[in-house]
Amino acid sequence: MDSIANFLSVKDVEDVGDWISLAQKFKVNPYAHQHLGANKTLGIIFFNPSLRTRLSTQKAASNLGMNVMVMNFNGEGWQLEMEDGAVMNGSSQEHISEAASVISQYCDIIAVRTFATLTDREEDYAEKFLSSFVKYARVPVVSLESATLHPLQSLADMLTLKEQNTKSNPKVVLSWAPHPKALPQAVANSFAQWTLAAGYDLTIAHPPGYELHPDFTRGARMTHNQEEALQGADFVYVKNWSAYENYGQVSREYDHWTLDGAKMQLTHNAKFMHCLPIRRNVIATDEVIDAPTSLILEQANNRTFAAQAVLYKLLSHER
Amino acid sequence: MDSIANFLSVKDVEDVGDWISLAQKFKVNPYAHQHLGANKTLGIIFFNPSLRTRLSTQKAASNLGMNVMVMNFNGEGWQLEMEDGAVMNGSSQEHISEAASVISQYCDIIAVRTFATLTDREEDYAEKFLSSFVKYARVPVVSLESATLHPLQSLADMLTLKEQNTKSNPKVVLSWAPHPKALPQAVANSFAQWTLAAGYDLTIAHPPGYELHPDFTRGARMTHNQEEALQGADFVYVKNWSAYENYGQVSREYDHWTLDGAKMQLTHNAKFMHCLPIRRNVIATDEVIDAPTSLILEQANNRTFAAQAVLYKLLSHER
Amino acid sequence: MDSIANFLSVKDVEDVGDWISLAQKFKVNPYAHQHLGANKTLGIIFFNPSLRTRLSTQKAASNLGMNVMVMNFNGEGWQLEMEDGAVMNGSSQEHISEAASVISQYCDIIAVRTFATLTDREEDYAEKFLSSFVKYARVPVVSLESATLHPLQSLADMLTLKEQNTKSNPKVVLSWAPHPKALPQAVANSFAQWTLAAGYDLTIAHPPGYELHPDFTRGARMTHNQEEALQGADFVYVKNWSAYENYGQVSREYDHWTLDGAKMQLTHNAKFMHCLPIRRNVIATDEVIDAPTSLILEQANNRTFAAQAVLYKLLSHER
Repeated sequence: MDSIANFLSVKDVEDVGDWISLAQKFKVNPYAHQHLGANKTLGIIFFNPSLRTRLSTQKAASNLGMNVMVMNFNGEGWQLEMEDGAVMNGSSQEHISEAASVISQYCDIIAVRTFATLTDREEDYAEKFLSSFVKYARVPVVSLESATLHPLQSLADMLTLKEQNTKSNPKVVLSWAPHPKALPQAVANSFAQWTLAAGYDLTIAHPPGYELHPDFTRGARMTHNQEEALQGADFVYVKNWSAYENYGQVSREYDHWTLDGAKMQLTHNAKFMHCLPIRRNVIATDEVIDAPTSLILEQANNRTFAAQAVLYKLLSHER
Repeated sequence: MDSIANFLSVKDVEDVGDWISLAQKFKVNPYAHQHLGANKTLGIIFFNPSLRTRLSTQKAASNLGMNVMVMNFNGEGWQLEMEDGAVMNGSSQEHISEAASVISQYCDIIAVRTFATLTDREEDYAEKFLSSFVKYARVPVVSLESATLHPLQSLADMLTLKEQNTKSNPKVVLSWAPHPKALPQAVANSFAQWTLAAGYDLTIAHPPGYELHPDFTRGARMTHNQEEALQGADFVYVKNWSAYENYGQVSREYDHWTLDGAKMQLTHNAKFMHCLPIRRNVIATDEVIDAPTSLILEQANNRTFAAQAVLYKLLSHER
Repeated sequence: MDSIANFLSVKDVEDVGDWISLAQKFKVNPYAHQHLGANKTLGIIFFNPSLRTRLSTQKAASNLGMNVMVMNFNGEGWQLEMEDGAVMNGSSQEHISEAASVISQYCDIIAVRTFATLTDREEDYAEKFLSSFVKYARVPVVSLESATLHPLQSLADMLTLKEQNTKSNPKVVLSWAPHPKALPQAVANSFAQWTLAAGYDLTIAHPPGYELHPDFTRGARMTHNQEEALQGADFVYVKNWSAYENYGQVSREYDHWTLDGAKMQLTHNAKFMHCLPIRRNVIATDEVIDAPTSLILEQANNRTFAAQAVLYKLLSHER
């Protein structure tokens, strides 16, 4: 048998276009493979709260006829130890090796949401938690967002781009936006990675100090000039992230990066994208969010079909 | 298409007797329409804890073959913003407009339990949270108790009254009872509203200062004399509520309103009703609660069939 | 009809060997009785957190085609009153009599995890909570671990012993091991009770002061000498428990009872057992836990089939 197939990033996808098409098929006919998941169980494991990811993944699994077990480790479970060789006489109740192995015995696929510490960059960018979990899991693992990536969101975003795009070479812009709290770089990293893998022309605008890790953005045009980036844009994805260099830091210096109607005037009647939840009148103004060009609800809707495509691939052992 | 049908109060019900009969049919044959809910999803959303409502609604949906997703916003979700135009740079993570719209994309019906602030009467009686949620939802919404009403409880209570009543014109009494904490008026408002809509002769007894909003009680006899109210009663529903005028206030002045066996002697061998959970020997004495005339467990049992009738109506687009 | 059959301890099992065989059959063919649970609902009620028990029980119920409703009282529910006649004007919101009766109306079987106070020995050993719940429940109750016993774990352990044993009279050792916090005696009590009921030769080793209640251990050899106990052992089950006499106390005096590779050399190439979660390098060293002779994951795996055997018995009214 081959090594277990997981879904942790775009690197686990051979042909991005093929997966987008599959998601699109499920959107047309969600119950096309309703018996594929019979007697199969999806374990959905959360280490921090979730709304869209939780409900869309559960729905996707149900559409495929899978049994779903949801577990919130915050409230229901325990603190996991990740260090090999640790003498566990402190607060950790169980080693991730046992937790991941045991959950694998009750589930056919495990979907897990972990989180960035935003304090230990090395640990976050090594995906310490997720990679430990994967190391000990004995069934396929689906990332529901990890410390540095959010591939299910990105696949949903790629479906949305495909559905909405009418051009041969649209200009896609990813723009930083302000936010009162420190947020991970996961959505931005992942959107860049998938957009580039799908062959889009990507421009990333952010203030000085908010550079992303180049591994994810290589091939994109980078600028500190938001207005220049927006000119002629066909799609504008806004998202906050905290600094990568001064890891996890936020300043209020760039609060004027809020996307508003005047800035949207610079674009080529661009579609507006965001992964939600969105801080209204901070990330973007109501005018932008509520415009007919806003795709945010369609992106959320597409989460179900992205998750369904991923589960289908893992259940049917297709790559 | 008509406007979306919701179940928020008795006003959403054309013929109360018809809905009670439907609930009664489901009690006889819970699986009569087991395929109606195939490939339909009920989202059950809680903003405060629940036992009966949670389990009976989940059971009702399963009886109809629906898929159920339960989400507790307290522990799993986020704080929602309700103000239009708010600059969301504080603690609210998501606007209710996005939350309600997005959940609508994953569910065919949304059942939601909200709560009274008991500090802001205007907000509570405008049903600010529920009406915002309904405004943005794109699928039918079922109230699992809101700030001022608890229609599913009332429909279950109406079924219980119908099953137990042997008279052409029974005397139904709703009596205030003491409680150590401030509670909403929702159950009392709703019981009054449904009892009157169903054509019962209703007497409401409460101490001075505990008047309910007249919109819900118009048509009932009101008295401050509990013993007088109990005389000749066929059904006695006891319930605590905090003051409407001095909104949310409680005093210990009326602790003698506890319903006990001596008071029940005044009635016409009345059946005892309460929606649970009940504070024993505070709301009513053990003697009353444990008597053969106590209907409290039957009321709880009927919650399943009330919820099933409501879900059936919404699924089958019947009114 | 007979009194309701429950699964609270080995005493509810007529023939231990028969139940072990049934669990073994479900391990071979988990879907053999997939229609037995149609239109039956299992309520899984937790009063403290759980990973294995939660997921394995839910899986077992699904394998039998049951509908499952999970409720965590910690986060979702309320504080229950257990005293008869209490005037409930304090923090308890509902009496266990109503809670157990009402849940019985929504479920065909109730599985409940309660916990030891570790401060009130009399209350714990009277199984006050569980026995109150059972008293008021109107459907069969399955213990998912109670104050003093953990029968589902033990049935899984018995299956593991049967699968792994190659001798006519293997030596089974239960050894106390250190732990930083006070833990219940439930797993140890229950393992002793089942092992003895299944006819195994059991030796229990623990430091002075950690004696278990003799009701559960009668028939076992007891020793304070861990090394002597290990000599010639075929199976070594390690587990921490706090003192029964100085109830709930722990000392750090016996930290050298950690099971390590050198101690395992004393055995007859013994298999290593633990119920998980395990504190690595406190209960036992990594060397022991990760050895090929370690059965811990198999024990966890067998939890599903133990639970399935129990649910099958209750659903089919077999004893």
